[in-house]
Amino acid sequence: MPKKSERTRQRIVEAANRLFYHKGYNQTSFSDVVMAAAVPRGNIYYYFRTKDEILEAAIRYRTERISQMLEQWTGNYRTPIERLHRFLDILSDSADAIMRYGCPMGSLNTELGKEQRELQEKAENLFKVFESWLCDQFAELGYAGRAHELALRLMAQGQGINVMAHVHNDPGFLRREKARLGQWLDQLADGNDECA
Amino acid sequence: MPKKSERTRQRIVEAANRLFYHKGYNQTSFSDVVMAAAVPRGNIYYYFRTKDEILEAAIRYRTERISQMLEQWTGNYRTPIERLHRFLDILSDSADAIMRYGCPMGSLNTELGKEQRELQEKAENLFKVFESWLCDQFAELGYAGRAHELALRLMAQGQGINVMAHVHNDPGFLRREKARLGQWLDQLADGNDECA
Repeated sequence: MPKKSERTRQRIVEAANRLFYHKGYNQTSFSDVVMAAAVPRGNIYYYFRTKDEILEAAIRYRTERISQMLEQWTGNYRTPIERLHRFLDILSDSADAIMRYGCPMGSLNTELGKEQRELQEKAENLFKVFESWLCDQFAELGYAGRAHELALRLMAQGQGINVMAHVHNDPGFLRREKARLGQWLDQLADGNDECA
Repeated sequence: MPKKSERTRQRIVEAANRLFYHKGYNQTSFSDVVMAAAVPRGNIYYYFRTKDEILEAAIRYRTERISQMLEQWTGNYRTPIERLHRFLDILSDSADAIMRYGCPMGSLNTELGKEQRELQEKAENLFKVFESWLCDQFAELGYAGRAHELALRLMAQGQGINVMAHVHNDPGFLRREKARLGQWLDQLADGNDECA
């Protein structure tokens, strides 16, 4: 695809992605995307025939960005415990957005998981990318036999904290729980798995 | 309101409540409610002018049912640890529904919390009823100074488990995490708050 077309396609995907997060997938209309992307409606059909196709493209885009980010973290942080702490930092870095809109991955999957299972199975990949990487970190930390279990547990902890922060609009809760999770990770790094 | 009207009103609320859970609030149309309640459209307007009003009635209905259930548990279970375990049992009792539709409270609040904050603040009451009761149990367990914190933490744990079970359609995860939560509660009951 020529460069200009690729940029336009990307602009549509990014505009749609932002709307899906802020309004929800089903609450976002094709017209909303047309307006936010500032691309004539006829032009959008050149790239995407349906809203579902835009969502699939948005999920692929996000999955790719997450993978790149995790690769960077692997390169920038020498030890698995440092990388796990960097993962936890998402909670504080995105605190305002989480309280305002909820977790982007969790809220999307929760919405789609009711009546749009085919779409939700694509959105599930957002979780799987993180879980696979977390699994690697826990294995490197010395918990190879339980790495997948610990990865899912950490994701679940994060998701629960996100839901509560969003429901109650409570930044203090997010901060305290993030600190507690950090302590749990440090204990694991010290070989203390009593609380696991 | 005469008995027959009250029954009809209740039928509308219960039908709508089920739809809101299975499809999502915004994905449920007024027509969906009309059909599911098997009440003529004109009759529904006698009770509710808008879908928002039906949602508010549904939330009040659920809040009342939750309060009654918690009162029963308080009466049926003599000790706070038994009551906390009874709360945990929701995870297993509702496992199929959670995997299919997500948590009814969490998914509703997540959806409304994006662009319908006024409605979400009403839905938040569903959480507050549970949290207040959990707070009482933790205080009675001997953690009066931290009771609210522990109540929110247990809710967060449950919410995270629900999201992950729904996203991955994974009953094993729900079972294992519920068991782990049960151990955490037992430790707290034994005065061991290291993992808290």
